[in-house]
Amino acid sequence: MCATYNPAEFKALTFHDATPAFRDGSDSPRKYLERCLATIEEREPVVQAWVEVNVQEARSVADASTLRYRAGRELSTIDGMPVGIKDLFMTKDMPTRMGSPLFQNNHTHQDSACVQALRAAGAIVLGKTVTTELGMSHPGPTTNPFNPLHTPGGSSSGSAAAVGARMAPAAIGTQVAGSVIRPASFCANYAIKPTMGAIHRGERQALSQSHMGVHAGDLQDMWQVSIEVAKRSGGDPGYPGLYGDTTLHPPIRPSQLIVMEAQGAAELDNASREAFEGFLLELRRAGVRTIDRTSHPLVESFERAIAESLELTRDICAYEMRWSLENLLDRFDGGLSDSLISRLELARKMSLDDYRLRLSARDAARAAHVSIAHLADAIVAPSSVGPAPRLDNQGVDSGISHTTGLPGYNAVTSMLGAPTITLPLLAVSRMPLGVQVIGQQHTDQYLVCLARWITETIPARSI
Amino acid sequence: MCATYNPAEFKALTFHDATPAFRDGSDSPRKYLERCLATIEEREPVVQAWVEVNVQEARSVADASTLRYRAGRELSTIDGMPVGIKDLFMTKDMPTRMGSPLFQNNHTHQDSACVQALRAAGAIVLGKTVTTELGMSHPGPTTNPFNPLHTPGGSSSGSAAAVGARMAPAAIGTQVAGSVIRPASFCANYAIKPTMGAIHRGERQALSQSHMGVHAGDLQDMWQVSIEVAKRSGGDPGYPGLYGDTTLHPPIRPSQLIVMEAQGAAELDNASREAFEGFLLELRRAGVRTIDRTSHPLVESFERAIAESLELTRDICAYEMRWSLENLLDRFDGGLSDSLISRLELARKMSLDDYRLRLSARDAARAAHVSIAHLADAIVAPSSVGPAPRLDNQGVDSGISHTTGLPGYNAVTSMLGAPTITLPLLAVSRMPLGVQVIGQQHTDQYLVCLARWITETIPARSI
Repeated sequence: MCATYNPAEFKALTFHDATPAFRDGSDSPRKYLERCLATIEEREPVVQAWVEVNVQEARSVADASTLRYRAGRELSTIDGMPVGIKDLFMTKDMPTRMGSPLFQNNHTHQDSACVQALRAAGAIVLGKTVTTELGMSHPGPTTNPFNPLHTPGGSSSGSAAAVGARMAPAAIGTQVAGSVIRPASFCANYAIKPTMGAIHRGERQALSQSHMGVHAGDLQDMWQVSIEVAKRSGGDPGYPGLYGDTTLHPPIRPSQLIVMEAQGAAELDNASREAFEGFLLELRRAGVRTIDRTSHPLVESFERAIAESLELTRDICAYEMRWSLENLLDRFDGGLSDSLISRLELARKMSLDDYRLRLSARDAARAAHVSIAHLADAIVAPSSVGPAPRLDNQGVDSGISHTTGLPGYNAVTSMLGAPTITLPLLAVSRMPLGVQVIGQQHTDQYLVCLARWITETIPARSI
Repeated sequence: MCATYNPAEFKALTFHDATPAFRDGSDSPRKYLERCLATIEEREPVVQAWVEVNVQEARSVADASTLRYRAGRELSTIDGMPVGIKDLFMTKDMPTRMGSPLFQNNHTHQDSACVQALRAAGAIVLGKTVTTELGMSHPGPTTNPFNPLHTPGGSSSGSAAAVGARMAPAAIGTQVAGSVIRPASFCANYAIKPTMGAIHRGERQALSQSHMGVHAGDLQDMWQVSIEVAKRSGGDPGYPGLYGDTTLHPPIRPSQLIVMEAQGAAELDNASREAFEGFLLELRRAGVRTIDRTSHPLVESFERAIAESLELTRDICAYEMRWSLENLLDRFDGGLSDSLISRLELARKMSLDDYRLRLSARDAARAAHVSIAHLADAIVAPSSVGPAPRLDNQGVDSGISHTTGLPGYNAVTSMLGAPTITLPLLAVSRMPLGVQVIGQQHTDQYLVCLARWITETIPARSI
């Protein structure tokens, strides 16, 4: 069944608040898991968030966790938490199908570093969630948990939908353009795409902008999954990894925020603009100053430096993917979607100097981002250019079809390597729309404090 | 049969000088290949450089290249060149066995980016060359082409030995500590470990210090393979790739060179020290000034910053490898060598903060390297702490056994991401010993010019 979205009424599934009852025995990780499985049973026929759920293994891990809580020996703050794994990551007990017919039997018999970390923390690797084809544009079968005629977003489609449908309290995703924040916006998740390299991204090392991210029902679960994984997996090779501790720190009221246009403002529909402006009005009422590109020449300079984030992201990723796409094309006849073929054709036209030019523009954008650090506590923007479009939409952006929604507010943060957190504070036409809080690199935990203040202070808003 | 080494007599196999005869039809890529295959037939029973040679495919590619030369339509300067591929890279026609019994049937059906680039340039992917276990310490069966009782060095054992034995004019390798330069030193190769990220390193992305490198019989072949691959594969994701063009530029005489001690000087045997000091004397006679840690406080500061390169490299790599080693240990019982197990045990004792501390020390060393850029044209040092030790040696360094030789002069350049070129200018006890020329990042082509001047000016020297 489908439920339209009302942010004042919607109660996301959370985990941290269940753990006290695990300790006193009135609840248990096994019972918590069974509630998730019941929701999956009920919602999955329509939502289709999962490629595979490993019920037997999940129950066995939940039972072990149940015993640990009884003995007061939890392994971490996420011990016993059922977590969905985007099907680009490897799990030793399930194939890694990557949303492609070419990988249906791709048994790696390995755990990606973050999956290994989840298991080491006692979490339950519940199953693999649907991704678009190789994490790019071509969509999987998942529908939006608040209206099955609409997209859940992509590429972390199943992770966002599973959390939005209350099937699991958290799920992991990846983002190269907008693949964590956009589906989280469409599915009313809290989600973080942390600082570049902050959490080990596993198989996506071949893409220089790839980030591992976390979808959850609230800020505390989101942060605790992030930090418990990072503590154990580290960041990407050569990166210092996510800074912080497992505590959810007290809220911090921002003094001043920068309202970013990026390439999203031009595409924002009127209702979403009205909803977002209402949010800004509430912020100002609460004493937060907001500035924008008209307020300071450095902000204007920043907006100019990010004005081609979509094109830069498209080209950089296409160039970086071309050797593996050539391999697939060479090996399989007709197994790639038109959308991937068009990315490969784009890449074939690029020289190394073309790529270098784009890396240089990306470096310049990162420098422009650093140059505005002193002007505000963070940046705010809508998390997507509107609520989830219908599944039959034909959104095209920068020459690439985006039926999972346009990334006009998202490619920028991926390109900058900047941490961003989406908060499900808006509803437009009874569908969710998130608000992003974006920080400087390595300020992730501080950003959670700002996000917490905003979440606790600014009322959710329906248009 | 084994031949002891005399640098004044040894004539390496080269390719670029054969190509004019390909054009006039007096020779051909196919005939060149057959000469390589005859040498392999003769030497391989003792040298054991190859895991697999794909003779049929090589002949077919050579024949196609032969036709291109006849038509004046070569694809690149390395069209028709037989190249050995270190068995850590993927080739679609051969398994990727990685020197481990656990991967004997690892058919990836893919080409790593650099292999794809070699094929696109018309080169012949001749076969897979032996590597140590997963490119770490545990040796394979290869022997030194100049004395089978000695190691060829590692981990690019087969690549260095194949070039030293004149089985192929070039081979590709990888280096995380000393895996290109050390075996090249032992096997009388010219070899480059370029700037960090300069050539796409394929499967070794999980190691932040991993570099793709090239072994060859002379500087021109070494450079042309490097640049033809980089033009087509690009560098690592997010890196600008190797700068330069396919021409071997004129020699450049250095004005001043820094003689680096690193952690090698303390381990250098007396004969090797005498040989290297003779080399320095010849440099000074040719008008090149040399300075060292006693000459300038910045050089002293640099030497201090790199004084633990071996330990930093060991720890950083162990931490970065631990999740994949855990996977292997979980999946296979007893399939890892004691040396890999000891690396995993080391990694398990490290926290994320321990890793961060080492990254920070590595950053400091890189800054110290940049700080001496203005003092000299380049750094020189022996390429290894002596000639190839015997196969039954039990070299132990920083707690890890190095039967393939100690990396006291090598880990430093990997850690710095600095380009280095080894030149086979010395012989000690009738075995080869290389001399390294080390530059600042992205000065690779300039470094080739310095290396060319040194090679053409300083006479080879036997002790």
